[in-house]
Amino acid sequence: MGLFTKDIATFDDLFLHQLQDVYYAEHQITKALPKMVHKATDAGLKQGFQTHLKETEGQIERLDRVFDLLGEKPKAVTCPAIDGIIKEANEVAGDISDKAVLDAALIASAQAVEHYEITRYGTLVTWAGQLGRPDIAKLLQETLDEEYATDDKLTAMAKAKVNPKAEAVTA
Amino acid sequence: MGLFTKDIATFDDLFLHQLQDVYYAEHQITKALPKMVHKATDAGLKQGFQTHLKETEGQIERLDRVFDLLGEKPKAVTCPAIDGIIKEANEVAGDISDKAVLDAALIASAQAVEHYEITRYGTLVTWAGQLGRPDIAKLLQETLDEEYATDDKLTAMAKAKVNPKAEAVTA
Repeated sequence: MGLFTKDIATFDDLFLHQLQDVYYAEHQITKALPKMVHKATDAGLKQGFQTHLKETEGQIERLDRVFDLLGEKPKAVTCPAIDGIIKEANEVAGDISDKAVLDAALIASAQAVEHYEITRYGTLVTWAGQLGRPDIAKLLQETLDEEYATDDKLTAMAKAKVNPKAEAVTA
Repeated sequence: MGLFTKDIATFDDLFLHQLQDVYYAEHQITKALPKMVHKATDAGLKQGFQTHLKETEGQIERLDRVFDLLGEKPKAVTCPAIDGIIKEANEVAGDISDKAVLDAALIASAQAVEHYEITRYGTLVTWAGQLGRPDIAKLLQETLDEEYATDDKLTAMAKAKVNPKAEAVTA
């Protein structure tokens, strides 16, 4: 959420605001992911980030459809949460030279982004249902399912990719 | 993560840094929660935030034990992610007058905080295992379980508390 919270009088306003917040977040993520693709050293991780970038673009189109269903123009409001998450991701990734450590940090950062999206879409799905918009809830649920799947893939990568190197470090 | 990322050379450094990051986050959360207790209008939600404040204090003590097990002094590093999440929570909650809408926004903000903790503790548990520290992984898993339980409670509250009011708004 951000600068326009004074406009929140009703539950519908809150829903719209949260939608604009996540719209901003998705756009910031499309800017952050190419940098993560560039920084990742493991080929599978690079590919994973690339795939998620395409998926994110699809999620933005889905949000465009939700705005349309609400009779609203797509709009983004500044979201300090995602800005902070991405700032932190950039800071940590910018200063690690060891490849395995860098990849581990990138995976952790990507999971922080995923969990932010999971919480926001989870809330939006619940609220859409409560506002009597199962059509919108269904669309947002599709994105939520994708975010959970991406988080699961990242968890699997964290466990598979980092482990051997980590053992080497602590051996 | 924050200012000290230049110190991250090994996987052990990354683990310690993430620990310091979440240590900072937990302290910021203990400062944010009393404000949320004050703002919440629903008695059950107020009580829930109060309970989570006590739980957070226990989680900080658990982190103190983890630092001790690592032979390190507890230390916090600035974490722009949690700062952003809390900033956003304060902004939105400060500008809603309708009680049901305010409570819904507070629940959503609390869930964003929970998901940040879930992702960070999830990563730390995985890394602790990979670094050959099942003792530390076990301690951090206890906190992770608490965070998941709190998130589930908040989801239940979002569904139970907001629904009737939401129907009134959209009727």
